[in-house]
Amino acid sequence: MDEIRVIEIKKSIFEDNDRDADKLRSELKKKGVFLLNLMSSPGSGKTTTLCRTINALKDRMKIAVMEADIDSDVDARKIYEATGVQSIQLHTGGMCHLDAEMTRQGLENLDLENVDLAILENVGNLVCPAEFDTGSVMNCMILSVPEGHDKPLKYPLMFSICDLVLINKIDVMPYFDFNLELCGKYIHMRNPKAQVIPVCAKTGEGIDKFAAWLEDRVRNWKES
Amino acid sequence: MDEIRVIEIKKSIFEDNDRDADKLRSELKKKGVFLLNLMSSPGSGKTTTLCRTINALKDRMKIAVMEADIDSDVDARKIYEATGVQSIQLHTGGMCHLDAEMTRQGLENLDLENVDLAILENVGNLVCPAEFDTGSVMNCMILSVPEGHDKPLKYPLMFSICDLVLINKIDVMPYFDFNLELCGKYIHMRNPKAQVIPVCAKTGEGIDKFAAWLEDRVRNWKES
Repeated sequence: MDEIRVIEIKKSIFEDNDRDADKLRSELKKKGVFLLNLMSSPGSGKTTTLCRTINALKDRMKIAVMEADIDSDVDARKIYEATGVQSIQLHTGGMCHLDAEMTRQGLENLDLENVDLAILENVGNLVCPAEFDTGSVMNCMILSVPEGHDKPLKYPLMFSICDLVLINKIDVMPYFDFNLELCGKYIHMRNPKAQVIPVCAKTGEGIDKFAAWLEDRVRNWKES
Repeated sequence: MDEIRVIEIKKSIFEDNDRDADKLRSELKKKGVFLLNLMSSPGSGKTTTLCRTINALKDRMKIAVMEADIDSDVDARKIYEATGVQSIQLHTGGMCHLDAEMTRQGLENLDLENVDLAILENVGNLVCPAEFDTGSVMNCMILSVPEGHDKPLKYPLMFSICDLVLINKIDVMPYFDFNLELCGKYIHMRNPKAQVIPVCAKTGEGIDKFAAWLEDRVRNWKES
């Protein structure tokens, strides 16, 4: 695969996204494909985090990636060049989020044969993606240190629906007024069950913990 | 004003937002109130930038601020405590943007007597706010260094509708792979007329330039 495929996904016409998401989830279960939905603000480090994590896991499971963006194919290209795994770019036509039907359109353009883990990198946005179930087994989000520890106060829904919050860019902690303990408190105010893992995608710090979390979830789900 | 007023704005029922925005703009013109719409990703430093800028301008013009967020009143409180200017919090009820009618609901809760400049701090989001004319005279956005210089490639509409792009957090430039020249090139690819001012809201660097830009625009508009 030398050319990065860019898929223009269409706005969904289905009205009942929750039903559609459940349907997609059960179809993926039959195929043995664990779908992870990764969300964050623009520029929080989703793609760099994925590159590191995929390289940590790709010898132990087969991974495929969908990179959603309004424009450009830089992310799918970056994933493919850094990891060699199957990667496609989804263009949302200006849409601010992906729903289950749009996710399905993306999955149909992947070769899912023997894939254990499909990762959807959602549009960079802390608001709209939280409102639409994509059919994923788990939701994960990244909050980066420069964004500030107060974000769970301002974007409650996003934090409430995520199983895991990665706190990225911890290498620049000394240059920002970021209180990790307070941030954890705010996250758990929104979602007592959320797990929190501090990472630095740039240096690789903490990525082993995220990879272990993910591998564990995929294995347990496959056996369930 | 010791209590920060929180206004729950309702989803707009008007279908023609462009017409509504033009109407609001001409009403504000009659009142002599210049409306600035400030947009950015979550955590780019909108509120800190506003505090600095308002303190630089408040002796020369009367300013009022509307802080839009999905939840919390931390921003309106921060503006009032740092500057003493009239500041209200708008809660969008989960909505990812403000349109002209929602902006009008906010303005109706401000005392606009003798106000020269009303500032709307939009919801932190690089996608949806770009799609809705708020009735503002000028659109301004902040891109912060940690978000990366590639954002104009990924969020084309936002950059194309802004008269001014502030590049914030330039104090941390040494710790990030941010190419200011390339960023300027990408911005002008989207919008050849956009002005670009690098600032650091934390230290105040460059805020004088933004304040001068804003004062100049308000004066010219009042005289036009």
